[in-house]
Amino acid sequence: MDIKTYISDNENRFLDELFSLIRIPSISAFAENKSDMIACAQRWQTLLLEAGAERVEILQTKGNPIVFAEKIIDKSAKTALVYGHYDVMPVEPLNEWKTPPFEPQVVDNHIFARGADDDKGQSFIQVKAFEYLVKTAQLPCNVKFIFEGEEEIGSPSLEEFCENNKELLKADLILVSDTSMLGADLPSLTNGLRGLAYWQIEVTGANRDLHSGHFGGAVANPINELCKILAQVVDNEGKITVPHFYDKVVPLSAEERTMIAQVPFDLEKYKQAIDIQEVTGEVGYSTLERNSCRPSFDVCGIWGGFTGEGSKTVIPSKAFAKVSCRLVADQNHEEISRLFCDYIYSIAPKSVKINVLSMHGGEAYLCPTNHFAYRAAEIGFEKAFGKKPLSVRRGGSIPIIATFEKVLNIKTILMGFGLESDAIHSPNENFNLDIFRKGIEAVVEFYKNL
Amino acid sequence: MDIKTYISDNENRFLDELFSLIRIPSISAFAENKSDMIACAQRWQTLLLEAGAERVEILQTKGNPIVFAEKIIDKSAKTALVYGHYDVMPVEPLNEWKTPPFEPQVVDNHIFARGADDDKGQSFIQVKAFEYLVKTAQLPCNVKFIFEGEEEIGSPSLEEFCENNKELLKADLILVSDTSMLGADLPSLTNGLRGLAYWQIEVTGANRDLHSGHFGGAVANPINELCKILAQVVDNEGKITVPHFYDKVVPLSAEERTMIAQVPFDLEKYKQAIDIQEVTGEVGYSTLERNSCRPSFDVCGIWGGFTGEGSKTVIPSKAFAKVSCRLVADQNHEEISRLFCDYIYSIAPKSVKINVLSMHGGEAYLCPTNHFAYRAAEIGFEKAFGKKPLSVRRGGSIPIIATFEKVLNIKTILMGFGLESDAIHSPNENFNLDIFRKGIEAVVEFYKNL
Repeated sequence: MDIKTYISDNENRFLDELFSLIRIPSISAFAENKSDMIACAQRWQTLLLEAGAERVEILQTKGNPIVFAEKIIDKSAKTALVYGHYDVMPVEPLNEWKTPPFEPQVVDNHIFARGADDDKGQSFIQVKAFEYLVKTAQLPCNVKFIFEGEEEIGSPSLEEFCENNKELLKADLILVSDTSMLGADLPSLTNGLRGLAYWQIEVTGANRDLHSGHFGGAVANPINELCKILAQVVDNEGKITVPHFYDKVVPLSAEERTMIAQVPFDLEKYKQAIDIQEVTGEVGYSTLERNSCRPSFDVCGIWGGFTGEGSKTVIPSKAFAKVSCRLVADQNHEEISRLFCDYIYSIAPKSVKINVLSMHGGEAYLCPTNHFAYRAAEIGFEKAFGKKPLSVRRGGSIPIIATFEKVLNIKTILMGFGLESDAIHSPNENFNLDIFRKGIEAVVEFYKNL
Repeated sequence: MDIKTYISDNENRFLDELFSLIRIPSISAFAENKSDMIACAQRWQTLLLEAGAERVEILQTKGNPIVFAEKIIDKSAKTALVYGHYDVMPVEPLNEWKTPPFEPQVVDNHIFARGADDDKGQSFIQVKAFEYLVKTAQLPCNVKFIFEGEEEIGSPSLEEFCENNKELLKADLILVSDTSMLGADLPSLTNGLRGLAYWQIEVTGANRDLHSGHFGGAVANPINELCKILAQVVDNEGKITVPHFYDKVVPLSAEERTMIAQVPFDLEKYKQAIDIQEVTGEVGYSTLERNSCRPSFDVCGIWGGFTGEGSKTVIPSKAFAKVSCRLVADQNHEEISRLFCDYIYSIAPKSVKINVLSMHGGEAYLCPTNHFAYRAAEIGFEKAFGKKPLSVRRGGSIPIIATFEKVLNIKTILMGFGLESDAIHSPNENFNLDIFRKGIEAVVEFYKNL
């Protein structure tokens, strides 16, 4: 039975299985979802066993558990290690969802739900391709799976887990479906990712909220000061002002810039899709360069003072911000984190107290395009999508990819099937069912051409 | 019976009455407290009748009702109009209160509760002084009371009410207890107040929250942009950068600066009391000048993006701030509001959409120190506190004072009995019982010396 027939014969079951994963609100950011993490790991355990894995374990970490599965066909054969994550992002703002985030529905050929793409949907593609190869006795190599539950909070337990389980995780390549393609008709393979560093800043003024009439103009307002600090982090040319921030950034080569310029990109459509008048960013770089090959600084959240209905005249005691930088090769996230903290402390006025907490981080990644498995992935995409995929760097971060290389010394192939319009991390996350089917086919072809 | 004896004989009843007012959570900022506003107005009605008012009406406005009371002893005698407000500020952050905000308690000779000072406690002083003069047949003039329920949200209904009730409100002077003294042993009379303008700013970036990996560095982040905008409003010298902002500010005279320099003020104690390392503000002015005679700009609240537990990498669609300026004579709040809006729109980048909503405002006030009632107030303070009060401008705003002058053409005498340490608008608001007693005495002496 060919793969297309297998998919169409089994699609209802596939969706039932995927929906059963999605219905579990495995939000790793919230302590209250702790029991959902375990339920989701167990659900994967069952599905991996049913798909053909011989051995599926739930392994404890100091955080959420890791699901490990394997099928060894021949100890001397090559081994692929498939990585995915079963945790998802928070769903706020809830009122912007058209359908409830944890009640998956198919509307207009798309699955709508949190995790439909990132990463339950994409991980599921890997498992169903594996299932087909097992059930049709075509699996050409050993396959291991490692699905973690902390990717969306920076994978704090995975590095230690890799350190402690090098033998278990031994493989010739790592396969990850957690990135996106340039477009539904623009298949692409990701050969680079950005790194990340994330901090929380707390600014304290007086030891209590003050009446802005009695103190306004004479005592520092922590929100005003926080804004001044954050406004200084990026200059008028879009450059990050932290000293030595760019010291280790690998400059974009002329070749890579030429390749990026050839990627079909319609700026007007891009702006229209997110309803903005103008793009912005670092002077001297194009939008595609800015969002993939250059570092960035974003305030991800800010709060302080009176935020309720109406008005209140107050100088609050405290103001907070959650901020992050996307990093590029060869920035070291720990070094950047230290530089950033030092800088924020250095520019803070003495009229307030500052605390900068480094929350998590990860390195950027660059993948060699001549790796044997990268070439197999190219063939897989070409057979499934009918076009040779483009090689591009992407702006997101999967810090664990750099960790795999450092700890396990294994290269990762990023076979991602997402689309920009999938709205991952946002309300109304969705996943295109055609891509879902072609994704399974591409992974099957990958294995056949390994 | 002298006033001191009257107070001590009746103190338990006084506190019971005041506590019955405080227990009603008359927070004007919240629609959910609407019925509490009416309950509080009715409680005042009862208390005013019991104190000796002949006629007490609850008068509807387009907002919260106004309590009007009067006792006319002689149509040809002078008339004092006592203004107060029965609404209070919100109580957030609730967890910082040592006692529940609407369950008044006396601890260490202080009443702790929202409204203990501002303005239920202070208004109550006026009513109890009136009661004493009525019960002892010493009232030397007609007295009218007007207690409104919207002072903390900018008195949006009072100007129209004054316009429509000029005859009802006719008086020779207005008496207000809603300001503070320099210290418990530093009696002072307020001869000036700052004005206020209040806005909400909304910054919109993309039409949805974006993944900071996929868009970071290429698309404007509304929080980053909001911070840049707010950081520009005050320059490095503490001056507000809005064009023409200072055009109409009455400069501080040499005489007034000399008088302010004579006010006892211990900067170290001031900093210690609110636990700050350094004061800040407009270059060239002292702390006492900055917080009373010069304008200021404060962000009263800010919010946007992910503010929950843990971390989320997101470029939010929207960011918000509530901001306000304290104004001084002769700045017109409506003109300042227009200048501010124009300025914010002018400095906003095209990469985001901006909306600036003018929420409310009021004029600053300056009172002549040679007014006959001002002199009576000086004597009242001197008799009660044993010292001639200092004349000082204060930094707070009671916009309605300027409105009284404009609409009713009546000067207001600000007999305020609060202390800085009363923590009005903050958690653990409190009112000193000694000051409470002396306040009643001072108002009695005021009437006797009118």
